Amino acid sequence: MAKQYVVGIDIGGQTSKLGVVDARGDVLAQNVIRTDTFGTDADAYIAALAEAVKTCIAAANLTTEDIRGIGVGAPNGNYYTGVVAFAPNLAWAATQAVPLAEKLSAACGVPVSLTNDANAAAVGEMAYGAARGMKNFIMITLGTGVGSGIVVDGKVLYGHDGFAGELGHTCVVRHNGRTCGCGKTGCLEAYCSAIGIARTAREWLAASGQPTPLRELQNITSKDIYDAAQQGDNFSLRLFEYTGTLLGQSFADFVAFSAPEAIVLFGGLARAKEFLYEPMKRAMDENLLKIWKGKVKIVFSELKESDAAILGASALAWEL
Amino acid sequence: MAKQYVVGIDIGGQTSKLGVVDARGDVLAQNVIRTDTFGTDADAYIAALAEAVKTCIAAANLTTEDIRGIGVGAPNGNYYTGVVAFAPNLAWAATQAVPLAEKLSAACGVPVSLTNDANAAAVGEMAYGAARGMKNFIMITLGTGVGSGIVVDGKVLYGHDGFAGELGHTCVVRHNGRTCGCGKTGCLEAYCSAIGIARTAREWLAASGQPTPLRELQNITSKDIYDAAQQGDNFSLRLFEYTGTLLGQSFADFVAFSAPEAIVLFGGLARAKEFLYEPMKRAMDENLLKIWKGKVKIVFSELKESDAAILGASALAWEL
Repeated sequence: MAKQYVVGIDIGGQTSKLGVVDARGDVLAQNVIRTDTFGTDADAYIAALAEAVKTCIAAANLTTEDIRGIGVGAPNGNYYTGVVAFAPNLAWAATQAVPLAEKLSAACGVPVSLTNDANAAAVGEMAYGAARGMKNFIMITLGTGVGSGIVVDGKVLYGHDGFAGELGHTCVVRHNGRTCGCGKTGCLEAYCSAIGIARTAREWLAASGQPTPLRELQNITSKDIYDAAQQGDNFSLRLFEYTGTLLGQSFADFVAFSAPEAIVLFGGLARAKEFLYEPMKRAMDENLLKIWKGKVKIVFSELKESDAAILGASALAWEL
Repeated sequence: MAKQYVVGIDIGGQTSKLGVVDARGDVLAQNVIRTDTFGTDADAYIAALAEAVKTCIAAANLTTEDIRGIGVGAPNGNYYTGVVAFAPNLAWAATQAVPLAEKLSAACGVPVSLTNDANAAAVGEMAYGAARGMKNFIMITLGTGVGSGIVVDGKVLYGHDGFAGELGHTCVVRHNGRTCGCGKTGCLEAYCSAIGIARTAREWLAASGQPTPLRELQNITSKDIYDAAQQGDNFSLRLFEYTGTLLGQSFADFVAFSAPEAIVLFGGLARAKEFLYEPMKRAMDENLLKIWKGKVKIVFSELKESDAAILGASALAWEL
């Protein structure tokens, strides 16, 4: 009998979430371990992760015999090599290249497929979410950073080396752009991530005397800006207008590249849909060639947020 | 016996060049007709083109029985539909959609595959030129305009609608950018095409008193700038430095999209390799993420210029 279940693992800087998933995208059992308590000891982390996988499979009343494969989404994960390398947020992979797919597979006795978190999100959205039935779309994850997964003809675009789809590090402000965490300047991520919009808020507060409840706060987060915008704060509404406009301008260039049917948005900042959608769509259409004006959709993830990362990673495993 | 020959047709605004090509990429016979003497009568143009194809096949001592297919590169040609539509430089296709592949196939009795000229160039370079053995590269054509053909995993990226790869119309100058022929502002094509560099020359002449032989000319062309640069004219050398820098900045963003092994350059302006290469490569590397710095090649077409367009289009036909 065909193996009917897969495991999805989402490796984040603080926690690693995993779940056993069936073919309909139902999560039968979940588990979570800390990612950040192993120092630089990658083997200790992988051993703990393998234990957590086995526990989770047992919790779903299954054995590893029932599992077709394990899909893993991890920062800087490389699909071709199965290696996680030089991921600043993972202490055990910050300065070394860790062959995670190979080691986890050996520990669990199940094939493992690995990619970065944004590519995993794209696969999940195609399998279970807003991109069902689409063969050409671009997934943009608006979280702490800006990630992307590009799907062409039903397959994730990995490129020559497996690292394709770093759209968060394309340039959106060419002159005098602010420094990005990657060391370059003017990157989309430096402006349109959760951290980016908070940076814009601090810049604008320093530059203008406009009254806003944000001025009272010690540390402004994107959540604070969202809450203020919902209260009608004009300063915060303008922050979303600006951020959405930059996103839309960038999307137009992405469309010129791969002519997708849609841009699919996911992540914490994408929850501000009500404030971002209009400026995003307007700026995108203003910057598109005539052949695309009004034709490219911007849609939002349809996956339940708590399950989305696990589902995305798990969808990778169906291809194993 | 397998059909061993193909026909390649390159449709330009003034002339349409065609040739019979064998599997090694040798052009056995060539022919050319005017493109611009048929007014808006697409059927008359297609009839003349079909006659020219038959004449050319006969000149190679072959019959249509020997021909596997015809590949056509045309401005705004759509691979999925075989239609040429709204091509400003083709009077018979400027305001209407012409099902060129279908009609030419009916007239010649041979299957026809159609795409735009830059995609055809990419296929040609992969089959016979500088991209042999590459599965992921980006072809950039620097001619009157800036075209592009993106190859992913050995196949041209066509996208949802067949129009993917319009990188000449991504934004390279966001603020106060000059107007492009497409109606948008700040497009790569408005700066880095043969026409674009001449526009930069005229702007700079008006803005500065720097002495240069270009100041004597009525109509400055990219060829004039090239000739002056070869004579050591500092003004012209700076024009290439600026143009190459803009190209390199854009290339860095393209790499972040599809992680190609190389950028392959073709077209009239690419002949200024000696002046463009260094600023292009430097600006690209400065704007790349660390994972790609120094790793992405910029190479120049290896196809004989007179044959290149025909070879590119003909290579499409091998897939038929």
